[in-house]
Amino acid sequence: MNEYLKHDEWCIIEEGFNPENHRASESIFSLGNGNMGQRAMFEEHYSGETLQGTYVAGVYYPDKTRVGWWKNGYPEYFAKVLNAPNWIGIDVKINGEMLDLAKCEVSDFVRTLNMKEGVLERSFVATLSNGNKVKVEAKRFLSIVTSEVGAIRYSVTPLNFDGKIAFTPYVDADVSNEDSNYDEQFWNVLQAKSMKGEAYITAATKKLDFHVSMSMKYDVYKDGQKLELSPVITENAKYVANTVEFEAEQDVEYSIYKYAAVLSSLNHSKTDISSDAVSVVEAAQAKGYGALLEEHVTAWADKWDHSDIMIEGDVAAQQAIRFNIFQMNQTYTGEDERLNIGPKGFTGEKYGGSTYWDTEAYCVPFYLSTSKPEVTRNLLIYRHKQLQKAIENAAKLGFTNGAALYPMVTMNGEECHNEWEITFEEIHRNGAIAFAIYNYIRHTGDKKYLEEYGLDVLIGISRFWSQRVSYSQAKKKYVMLGVTGPNEYENNINNNWYTNTIATWCMKYAQEAMAHVKETNPARFDEIMKNLNFDFDAETAKWTDIIENMYYPVDEETGVYMQQDGFMDKEQILASELDPAIRPINQHWSWDRILRSCFIKQADVLQGIYLFEDQYDLETIRKNYDFYEPRTVHESSLSPCIHSILAATIGDEERAYNLYLRTSRLDLDDYNKEVHEGLHITSMAGTWMSIVEGFGGMRVVDGKLVFKPMLPKEWKSYSFKVRFRGNLLNVRVSEDGVGVINEEGETINIFIKDDEYKVEKESSLVVEHA
Amino acid sequence: MNEYLKHDEWCIIEEGFNPENHRASESIFSLGNGNMGQRAMFEEHYSGETLQGTYVAGVYYPDKTRVGWWKNGYPEYFAKVLNAPNWIGIDVKINGEMLDLAKCEVSDFVRTLNMKEGVLERSFVATLSNGNKVKVEAKRFLSIVTSEVGAIRYSVTPLNFDGKIAFTPYVDADVSNEDSNYDEQFWNVLQAKSMKGEAYITAATKKLDFHVSMSMKYDVYKDGQKLELSPVITENAKYVANTVEFEAEQDVEYSIYKYAAVLSSLNHSKTDISSDAVSVVEAAQAKGYGALLEEHVTAWADKWDHSDIMIEGDVAAQQAIRFNIFQMNQTYTGEDERLNIGPKGFTGEKYGGSTYWDTEAYCVPFYLSTSKPEVTRNLLIYRHKQLQKAIENAAKLGFTNGAALYPMVTMNGEECHNEWEITFEEIHRNGAIAFAIYNYIRHTGDKKYLEEYGLDVLIGISRFWSQRVSYSQAKKKYVMLGVTGPNEYENNINNNWYTNTIATWCMKYAQEAMAHVKETNPARFDEIMKNLNFDFDAETAKWTDIIENMYYPVDEETGVYMQQDGFMDKEQILASELDPAIRPINQHWSWDRILRSCFIKQADVLQGIYLFEDQYDLETIRKNYDFYEPRTVHESSLSPCIHSILAATIGDEERAYNLYLRTSRLDLDDYNKEVHEGLHITSMAGTWMSIVEGFGGMRVVDGKLVFKPMLPKEWKSYSFKVRFRGNLLNVRVSEDGVGVINEEGETINIFIKDDEYKVEKESSLVVEHA
Repeated sequence: MNEYLKHDEWCIIEEGFNPENHRASESIFSLGNGNMGQRAMFEEHYSGETLQGTYVAGVYYPDKTRVGWWKNGYPEYFAKVLNAPNWIGIDVKINGEMLDLAKCEVSDFVRTLNMKEGVLERSFVATLSNGNKVKVEAKRFLSIVTSEVGAIRYSVTPLNFDGKIAFTPYVDADVSNEDSNYDEQFWNVLQAKSMKGEAYITAATKKLDFHVSMSMKYDVYKDGQKLELSPVITENAKYVANTVEFEAEQDVEYSIYKYAAVLSSLNHSKTDISSDAVSVVEAAQAKGYGALLEEHVTAWADKWDHSDIMIEGDVAAQQAIRFNIFQMNQTYTGEDERLNIGPKGFTGEKYGGSTYWDTEAYCVPFYLSTSKPEVTRNLLIYRHKQLQKAIENAAKLGFTNGAALYPMVTMNGEECHNEWEITFEEIHRNGAIAFAIYNYIRHTGDKKYLEEYGLDVLIGISRFWSQRVSYSQAKKKYVMLGVTGPNEYENNINNNWYTNTIATWCMKYAQEAMAHVKETNPARFDEIMKNLNFDFDAETAKWTDIIENMYYPVDEETGVYMQQDGFMDKEQILASELDPAIRPINQHWSWDRILRSCFIKQADVLQGIYLFEDQYDLETIRKNYDFYEPRTVHESSLSPCIHSILAATIGDEERAYNLYLRTSRLDLDDYNKEVHEGLHITSMAGTWMSIVEGFGGMRVVDGKLVFKPMLPKEWKSYSFKVRFRGNLLNVRVSEDGVGVINEEGETINIFIKDDEYKVEKESSLVVEHA
Repeated sequence: MNEYLKHDEWCIIEEGFNPENHRASESIFSLGNGNMGQRAMFEEHYSGETLQGTYVAGVYYPDKTRVGWWKNGYPEYFAKVLNAPNWIGIDVKINGEMLDLAKCEVSDFVRTLNMKEGVLERSFVATLSNGNKVKVEAKRFLSIVTSEVGAIRYSVTPLNFDGKIAFTPYVDADVSNEDSNYDEQFWNVLQAKSMKGEAYITAATKKLDFHVSMSMKYDVYKDGQKLELSPVITENAKYVANTVEFEAEQDVEYSIYKYAAVLSSLNHSKTDISSDAVSVVEAAQAKGYGALLEEHVTAWADKWDHSDIMIEGDVAAQQAIRFNIFQMNQTYTGEDERLNIGPKGFTGEKYGGSTYWDTEAYCVPFYLSTSKPEVTRNLLIYRHKQLQKAIENAAKLGFTNGAALYPMVTMNGEECHNEWEITFEEIHRNGAIAFAIYNYIRHTGDKKYLEEYGLDVLIGISRFWSQRVSYSQAKKKYVMLGVTGPNEYENNINNNWYTNTIATWCMKYAQEAMAHVKETNPARFDEIMKNLNFDFDAETAKWTDIIENMYYPVDEETGVYMQQDGFMDKEQILASELDPAIRPINQHWSWDRILRSCFIKQADVLQGIYLFEDQYDLETIRKNYDFYEPRTVHESSLSPCIHSILAATIGDEERAYNLYLRTSRLDLDDYNKEVHEGLHITSMAGTWMSIVEGFGGMRVVDGKLVFKPMLPKEWKSYSFKVRFRGNLLNVRVSEDGVGVINEEGETINIFIKDDEYKVEKESSLVVEHA
């Protein structure tokens, strides 16, 4: 853990400049607006350790694959989240010396991420080696109103001199990816233009031909008075800039306002993109920094109004949940069905790819409750559109008859991960995609989705499972050999309980879904059957046989579900017995040692129990939780939230709270010592779940919302909002009881604990604690 | 299978030029002399598909590693067998047109590898696009007398014209490795000199600073008459050449004799290497092609005299065994303890590395019987010298107290393979290294080796095993989790029977070895104990506990040893049921499908039964053989020889013979469709074993040689020679019986079948079949 950030309800605050934390801070203070994003790099030149990261939604790069030994079925490329040209840069020279925080004395450094307003601020005093001392204030935001626009206000005040200051705002396309497999650069610059007061670069990716255009304009002010300056124009092959120099007076503030437009060919024709970018930046400049900021702040207020969770009495917890919600909202807005949610969002390169099972397993529950149904629906349709690719992906691995295996990592439906133990074996992802359909319908009541988009996906997935199992003569049961479960600290295992469980669930649910469509829209049902060439009797009989005869490993002595065959042959040590110096184990142990240990990276059996909780009694849940939690090292960001929810389910408030802190402050406190690589965006949705489903105990049962809330003793109260089938409920849990306000929608019946209550339209309900 | 080569007792013959076979032929017709080697590339320019390969023993390159996701403990580099500057090149121009077999009409093409003489020959008639028709004869060899020298005779006869012919002999350092991870070249040229009649290049590897110098000289003859010609000199940065042009007459033969010296800094000081190379090539030219060839052929005759196996009545089998013996002798001569035997020898880049467990498991038995003990001893000392590195290697993986894990692939003792399932888990290699010590002593009687070099290796290995097992409370036994056995078509399995078996054997043998040294040389014993900081009572007690309580998986129903836990959960299909179109499966199936199938890449349980045959009765051997052979796809070259030997052991002559053909003609007939990558050198020793130990039934029992021979019905007779403890025995098995000649050494007692016989000094014994 690395706790260098101040606790505050609405802001993330770093006081004092510590270069060793800078890469971590670049991640934590990242900005995004769904359409683009960037790490919190400095505007001015910085020669210290930094990971430059400017990202444009939907623009990626199919990098040449790098593997040790090629295996049949490996994808041809490894997609990369693409570091795009840098448009935030403003070099600053003071009497000819470059301002560079790695090379001067820095004091009074404060960096603030104002989450309420969606603004990144920074101020410091720097003493250069020439003795000149300046105060700097920088503020920037990516507009969530005009999502192609970013703006920066950067001001310098000489503190001990009169002299020359030069600002060089620029756009730089000489950028590369840290994770480029062959140290290649991925951009070709098509146009680079610099004129008085403005400049732009239009660049194309070397493969796939995505185009982006970054244009900039700027104004310089002296103490609020605009200066008319003649810039020196620089126009290189990959770099465009203006340099404006002026005589500065001591104690007077000089500010540059830099406006940028960031356009991509996802939204603009390639012929017009450069001129469009110029128009967009001109409009931004015309509107002005103040007006842009004001509408941006107003829009954030609206977002918060719908998605905020308030916690009274625990600033660390309050800050953390807002950080998680803020980052989710920065990453994905749900407006564009071509986009999805990468594990690092716009905060880093790692896991280069936009879509993992994280989306379905973690993000869908968040968006279901905090957004209109269309947002989740877009996420589901994204997979529907990629069904054909999933069928091709399965065919590469030898599956037939329309069996679909969705990729582990993808940009466009094609697999782009290549380690066999993940790509070929971590197949449980297929289950999460089916479950998300079920979850969406359960939450929204939109059963029509099945006939429109859902059924073919469910059938493709079920066909895959039915071919992926095999029959063990020894066990007289169906088995699933050679898989990797959610717990990636085991590879190529047999009968992963979670995977076996979700596989048969998929085959059951697909049959229910077929029955529903057949009953409600027989013509459409026949059409789907025909399109899929589905042999109803034979295929469903096979599925049923598998469902009825599947093998699930169980420890005979204790009745605990076994994560996989042979788990009890491992040396049974608890995570608490590990020397803290070797945690996280994935940074200290060789892979074989991790694999043969009993330590679990993330919820595995417990993930299954979480999804299908209604099938297990409390005693079973507790027994499994008590067995697995002490063996789980939570080195996946996706782990603690599920454990926190289950701890709440079994009434273990202390562990629920501690695991909540772990999931919610994972990046802020850097539990896994990797935040310098970027934030764990998708697990942030899990943090939200751990409050709403964990402490709030929210479930959907028989089409109705149920809350079984608990209040951590550290908190006075907490409140959250939930969208459910046309209603927007505001739920507040305090020491006194549970309050529910029906903010939108008709009268609704809900359960609190075991009792049903009616919440009238635009009214509220208060249930005191028993 | 691809059977395009003619059957012949002493030669490999390719008739007709088929470009699609050329890369395969480049492998098959490779030359080597222990000190260097090369693929059978053409001397003249060839623009068709080719893999240029010129290799210098002991010179390798630590290429940058390429992996998907880095894991703790991975080695920092991946060593490459290094393609060195090409010294065989002779460009030929006919009336200004380049002779290039990819661009002219070729007839009467014959390529011959004369194994008796160690010479590669080639002849053809080419009609160029300018209409000129020439006859070409090329012959080259790498001297096994002066192992730094190679010589070529290349002749051209105009068949339908008088006109200009130009020869351009050259040395070219602008070479690269096909398997370079980042498309880098690995050489820096230090000197490139070209003068009249001679030229040389001295180059250094970019890492590790190996130097090689290649120098050349040449003479041109007209019909046996030396021509005095003035060459055009070319001296580029990486390429040196002379071009000699002359007026040629129809039907007259023009020959160029090219002499080359190939020196490396393993044997020469870096300051002198260039001048040394010039001296060596001058001496070669002075001696002349004819004399060089004659001494070379004589030396090969001597090699054959000691290592030949003669088979009467089966040309394909005869050719095959000679091909295997020839390649073994080309690859490793046993004179230099710094060298070892790479899986591809000097015939290709694949498996970039010099030393695998192949050396101990397959090559050692070959050299024990065909060479003086020093050769095997050098191979063992090679590992002894790398013990410290093996201890460091184990320490990287978390082992302590001097535990040693030898690398899977190495050049200098460091691991250079990086796929976790192999590098970290295929640990059975450690066992083969211990077994080789046992085997060497059993065969030579040199028990003193233990105190000199053997004991510390055995202890390091045993310490590793004792830490690598863990205790299963569930089984109340020691288990070994997370390993890959010899059968690499399973990864990360539990309780591989072979690995468990050899692990406990190592711990037993180490204790026997300690007891022996303690008894025979107590002072040295104490010294070793002290050096190793060996806690005798505690460590041996732990070993004994493991030996006594190790778990070995067995199928309860049949008593067959189970390759691993859960093997019987797999779908039990036989290899014979597979569609031939999808064989080899590793070229058609995705890795997960291979892993969860029951198909075995190479002998695994049977490898263990082979090594420890004396511990199993015939019924057990047969039962396991009958279970595993039908499930084995032999996609490792190391597999069929072991199966052939065991088939012979259980009296299954037909399978023994078929598997013999498969192992011996593996490359000639390209069973696994990969000979274009190089030859399977190390498995060739296994082919030798399948005759001597398989058909010949040779074993060492209680310090005596035992033969239990059988004669395949396709053969009239076969004979081989065996060195054993000072004796050289010539064994001939024919339809009449078994003949043994004691060619060297004192009188010796041997067993034939169950009867003991005395073979007097320089006498022979004939035992007729019962």
